[in-house]
Amino acid sequence: MSFAAVDVIRAKRDGGELSDPQIDWVVDAYTRGEVADEQMSALAMAILLNGMTSREIATWTAAMIASGERMDLSSVPRPTVDKHSTGGVGDKITLPLVPLVAACGAAVPQLSGRGLGHTGGTLDKLESIPGWRARLSGAEYRAQLADLGAVICAAGDTLAPADRKLYALRDVTGTVEAIPLIASSIMSKKIAEGASALVLDVKVGSGAFMKSLPDARSLAETMVRLGHDHGVRTVALLTDMSTPLGRTAGNALEVTESVEVLAGGGPADVVALTVELAREMLAAVGLSDVDPALALADGRAMDVWRRMIAAQGGDPSAPLPVAPEVEVVRAEADGVVSRLDAYAVGVAAWRLGAGRARKEDPVSASAGVVMLRKPGEAVRAGEPVLELHTESADRIAGALEALAGALDIASEAPAVLPLTMERIDA
Amino acid sequence: MSFAAVDVIRAKRDGGELSDPQIDWVVDAYTRGEVADEQMSALAMAILLNGMTSREIATWTAAMIASGERMDLSSVPRPTVDKHSTGGVGDKITLPLVPLVAACGAAVPQLSGRGLGHTGGTLDKLESIPGWRARLSGAEYRAQLADLGAVICAAGDTLAPADRKLYALRDVTGTVEAIPLIASSIMSKKIAEGASALVLDVKVGSGAFMKSLPDARSLAETMVRLGHDHGVRTVALLTDMSTPLGRTAGNALEVTESVEVLAGGGPADVVALTVELAREMLAAVGLSDVDPALALADGRAMDVWRRMIAAQGGDPSAPLPVAPEVEVVRAEADGVVSRLDAYAVGVAAWRLGAGRARKEDPVSASAGVVMLRKPGEAVRAGEPVLELHTESADRIAGALEALAGALDIASEAPAVLPLTMERIDA
Repeated sequence: MSFAAVDVIRAKRDGGELSDPQIDWVVDAYTRGEVADEQMSALAMAILLNGMTSREIATWTAAMIASGERMDLSSVPRPTVDKHSTGGVGDKITLPLVPLVAACGAAVPQLSGRGLGHTGGTLDKLESIPGWRARLSGAEYRAQLADLGAVICAAGDTLAPADRKLYALRDVTGTVEAIPLIASSIMSKKIAEGASALVLDVKVGSGAFMKSLPDARSLAETMVRLGHDHGVRTVALLTDMSTPLGRTAGNALEVTESVEVLAGGGPADVVALTVELAREMLAAVGLSDVDPALALADGRAMDVWRRMIAAQGGDPSAPLPVAPEVEVVRAEADGVVSRLDAYAVGVAAWRLGAGRARKEDPVSASAGVVMLRKPGEAVRAGEPVLELHTESADRIAGALEALAGALDIASEAPAVLPLTMERIDA
Repeated sequence: MSFAAVDVIRAKRDGGELSDPQIDWVVDAYTRGEVADEQMSALAMAILLNGMTSREIATWTAAMIASGERMDLSSVPRPTVDKHSTGGVGDKITLPLVPLVAACGAAVPQLSGRGLGHTGGTLDKLESIPGWRARLSGAEYRAQLADLGAVICAAGDTLAPADRKLYALRDVTGTVEAIPLIASSIMSKKIAEGASALVLDVKVGSGAFMKSLPDARSLAETMVRLGHDHGVRTVALLTDMSTPLGRTAGNALEVTESVEVLAGGGPADVVALTVELAREMLAAVGLSDVDPALALADGRAMDVWRRMIAAQGGDPSAPLPVAPEVEVVRAEADGVVSRLDAYAVGVAAWRLGAGRARKEDPVSASAGVVMLRKPGEAVRAGEPVLELHTESADRIAGALEALAGALDIASEAPAVLPLTMERIDA
């Protein structure tokens, strides 16, 4: 069926519901270039401001999946399960999590992305490992998944091409922050990826897309429903992103921290969230009798990590790039760190070179922020609290500016909030 | 000052007010192509849904005027005044009005447009006169204005180029119906045109843009304020467009009817509105002691018309094109016509060939609708009520379809409503 783009835009603009044929047509026609960018951006703005019903979101997501091919992983001799985080500062969980879950008997087909703005990207982090490559052929991907149960690589061009085009458009037209569009973007790619189950880590707080718990809950519920509609067992955790995860934000810095976790050490919050997400993933595919904490402690996860990195050309033993310039930020008073703002740290790491402003920009492997003190930890005036790592000293001023007001020191320790705030199941 | 387009879009999307520097920048950057079409369409949709304050509309209009040149008519040896109609069916008033007001001593610099959709365009109507041309050089335009006081021609490329670009974009992105954008589009062109006074005919009803009186009033008030802000004495009349004006809708058909009015005859509603608008225009430039009804009756307006047409290459005595195909619509019952829907007649004339679906389409000079009976007039079953004129008989079915349910015949005459519903002054 064919429609006039203006009629579809007007229907949503005037608060109406789009029909299934209208949605199928507009997504397909946009992918083919028949609906112009300026028409889709007007429609995206109308969707952002007027919303979509569950039925419209489901149809929109199905249309985006249908714009490409849905992968068939039935030949993989293990249950398949994936994880997706909506993005946060210092969120390197994918790195230890994928080999950990593989070590426990599942297969994790993680097609990942690059960072944009203040949140880092998994592929950018792994590319700080000498030799590691993000692009695999379809055959390489399947072979590695069958052999190791663990692969983290770039998504191919056939995975939800409508989303690829729409995502780039939303980024430049102020239409990113619409729950129907965020949910359908994430879920179209994850469903097309072909895993039988999915665990979502929906971040809440200053360093996340969703600043408030109700918004995050609404996004999580929408995505869980979409997964189930398409036969993918989906669970979501809402987790705190008011302060960064772990003690590092930056590419090589986060790889180093991830390897510490795989070696049985690392920051408590990163370990706890990695194990919690692993338990959810294993439970989702009937492997709840396997204990991921044990696979982390006895080195099995590390073993998969080293083989996974080597399979994609990386040298897991090679030293990682180190920044030539390090600026130390010191405490201004005695006390306990009561707040360290995730968004500010994310922007600081980005300005130091860890992130990119435009898709085509390169990132620095060594740049980032090391957090020597985190909320709840005591500090004395003059002691180092943060380290700013960068390749060029002229980036330090901008990072310091981003960090102004981001760190509070109080006389008493702050209340400790749980990292996981809610769990949303079907 | 420079901004990121996304920040400007987000500010309006989130219900905020744009600053003057933001508006100046975004209009200028869009005209220069630095802000992309897809960004401007997202902003237009946010403006449509979230509105603009009076200050924002004033600044936006000023920025559109500043995108081109504002004409200086100080060398014209008469007071200058123009008129603008928001567009209706059978609205040929500009044709008799411009020579009439000129015959009364003012100068009317009417830069006009073409029809799009179901409403006709003044230039399309005049182009049905053999030889007449819409494009004048700046020198020709000034000379004719000084000499005759009457010119109707196409706007040049230097008149509010930002509006030209934005208007075309709004048309394909479902963002036409926003009062801030309609008001700033009309007023930027009319203010840039350089007349010292302006009378607006804001149409209300099924055949108009504004279907309801409150919407039309809001648009009129916004435009009157914009005129005054820029030193142009501006008055608006809200006039009925629930039924067509006069007895014709179509290009040559409306020229013929206009010449009848100039000859002292013609339909009463067209004569009344022409004289009322002429009085407003003359009063706005201090010529309220001149009686336009007299200048119509004694042939002075007709004399200016003939010279105005001839000055632009037209032959005012040449026969106009006549349609080869005429379909007669007959009354189905005895009674009085109680309703004849303006929108339906407009769409019928359009489908018969009088209008265009896309900017680049040609129009038929002879096509249109003749209304033999109008609301309040008695009719017997079987008598002709409408004539459908067209160059190709295959267009008749579509016109008849548009007219289904558009004509009511009742046993009693309908209440007669005044043509002018309200008058809005500063």
